[in-house]
Amino acid sequence: MPGINMDKAGIIMDDKFITLAHGAGGLKSRELVEEVMLPAFDNEYLRQMHDGAKLQMTNNIAFTTDSYVVQPLFFNGGNIGKLAVCGTVNDLAMTGAVPKYISVGMIIEEGFAIADLQKIVMTMKEAAAEAGVHIVTGDTKVVDKNKGDGIFINTAGVGEIIQGCDIAPQNVKAGMDVIASGYLGDHAATIMACRHNLQMPGTLKSDCAPLNKLVEKLLQEVPQIAVMRDATRGGAAAVLNEIAGQAGIGIIIDEDKIPVRKEVNGFCDILGFEPLYLANEGKFITFVDKKYTEKVLAVMHQSEYGKDACVIGETNDKAVNEVVLRTTIGGMRIIDMPAGEQIPRIC
Amino acid sequence: MPGINMDKAGIIMDDKFITLAHGAGGLKSRELVEEVMLPAFDNEYLRQMHDGAKLQMTNNIAFTTDSYVVQPLFFNGGNIGKLAVCGTVNDLAMTGAVPKYISVGMIIEEGFAIADLQKIVMTMKEAAAEAGVHIVTGDTKVVDKNKGDGIFINTAGVGEIIQGCDIAPQNVKAGMDVIASGYLGDHAATIMACRHNLQMPGTLKSDCAPLNKLVEKLLQEVPQIAVMRDATRGGAAAVLNEIAGQAGIGIIIDEDKIPVRKEVNGFCDILGFEPLYLANEGKFITFVDKKYTEKVLAVMHQSEYGKDACVIGETNDKAVNEVVLRTTIGGMRIIDMPAGEQIPRIC
Repeated sequence: MPGINMDKAGIIMDDKFITLAHGAGGLKSRELVEEVMLPAFDNEYLRQMHDGAKLQMTNNIAFTTDSYVVQPLFFNGGNIGKLAVCGTVNDLAMTGAVPKYISVGMIIEEGFAIADLQKIVMTMKEAAAEAGVHIVTGDTKVVDKNKGDGIFINTAGVGEIIQGCDIAPQNVKAGMDVIASGYLGDHAATIMACRHNLQMPGTLKSDCAPLNKLVEKLLQEVPQIAVMRDATRGGAAAVLNEIAGQAGIGIIIDEDKIPVRKEVNGFCDILGFEPLYLANEGKFITFVDKKYTEKVLAVMHQSEYGKDACVIGETNDKAVNEVVLRTTIGGMRIIDMPAGEQIPRIC
Repeated sequence: MPGINMDKAGIIMDDKFITLAHGAGGLKSRELVEEVMLPAFDNEYLRQMHDGAKLQMTNNIAFTTDSYVVQPLFFNGGNIGKLAVCGTVNDLAMTGAVPKYISVGMIIEEGFAIADLQKIVMTMKEAAAEAGVHIVTGDTKVVDKNKGDGIFINTAGVGEIIQGCDIAPQNVKAGMDVIASGYLGDHAATIMACRHNLQMPGTLKSDCAPLNKLVEKLLQEVPQIAVMRDATRGGAAAVLNEIAGQAGIGIIIDEDKIPVRKEVNGFCDILGFEPLYLANEGKFITFVDKKYTEKVLAVMHQSEYGKDACVIGETNDKAVNEVVLRTTIGGMRIIDMPAGEQIPRIC
């Protein structure tokens, strides 16, 4: 977000749709920044009027990025903007950091409705406020009609590493509990339902949420947590396979214990999906020594975003890099890394 | 770039084109990361196998982002990948920071040739090496055919603020020199020539380059520099107008002094462009008290990227927020903020 010259600013932007001029770096770009972005994101950092934000950091930092290309852009429980803020906030939280500052890069298709952009921007403001992060720098590009898909949003973020904890997959050992922070699959089921115009109960909505305050509390109370990872693309199955491989251990998950809403289970039955593979946007999986499990659950249950947390399985040294599901009827089934495009553009 | 499980990795990716599966977070995503991204970008930070990179920073930081949507993707003097690394490196440099770490978010259209992706990635590696920055975290999304345009790349970056200098538009006062770091307009002229298949001399190429080492040297030698800004979208005209507005001063530029290559001038004559409005990707404008001008030029002339630096004008207190061009024949003409989409998708 380059510097802004208030004196020559347009009075009120009367365009209804984004044009290529809004991405050309001149007057129209400035109008867009001043009349859509700044009213939502205004803060002392953006007012520095620089090519970048100058920030004070006291600890070592975590740095992450994600782009968001979800379709549809608006869905029950959120929109692409909420996803973009929460996703980067959650990635920072998962490294054991307190998220502080977020950048926003938008690639908008010519003809996109400015009213929709305003809705997205206001949701980003709300999500940032809830997470306690500042949106400090940004960029907007416009691409020709039919060379984009409405809007794509990239967020990057920096956070301060919480002292005294050590979050790394290599810390996972045999005999640890595997904890899910709540119901799995809500986000993917919601997106698929929207996309196929399926009639779903109104209770089905994306779980998109900023997890950082819950995680910060958790790490303060239980710094012994071995690793945490949010179960986004690829679902819990991808997370469990990554950790099993990186830690060189086996994991057994109990099908009975996996928290899945009735409506998501129904959705899986109809479409042949497996809840463990469904993407989430407000859930994480954590590994902890069994002696801390009770404490972890107690802390999580106090939070709106962890109130349904439960143990779903445990690690073992009988296998290396293997995730197994113990099914309801007592069988054992390998849970592989997801292979293909089960649900494209879920985030 | 999430964690990677090497044991289950594909041996050699035999796909020739990007599919939606490469963006789904499963095995194909991992193959893409392991066989295209990591061989180029491999470093200790990526090997942390986290949702984000953990970094040690000693000073206050600068943080910036830009998305790149340039067409064509490959052009004389660079490609979208080089642009994405240099652009963010330069934005950090312009805040008075030493760029340290870069994130890379790619949005790739289904069907994009993996050979082209590899070329882009290798160029990013080279540009990062030249600038001395590490690519520490990333993300890849894939969108359906005809919902993108080959590839879009977002980079964000963090750098450490150089102590002892104070770079801000508000530091610009009347009576300062305005210095251009070299020939203006090369990038825009090259992109337009490529796009319209114009026959241009082989000497015409984009000036895309990392400016951080030149800037670091400059700030060490002349910490009194008031402000610097790279003249990208909107060209020098946008920068001059931004600074004039933010500092509340007037600027007079001498047309005779603006460094423009003969071939770029020819291009402007044919197409009716004005060199001051053409985008650059390796040039910056700096404002400095006249007593330091000689020293600034001496330092810049030692660098490949500043060897043609020269004074192009000066600031005054006779006007507020006004940029004027003193033409070759002695007339005076207002240089306004660029208004429309002179050259869309230039970066």
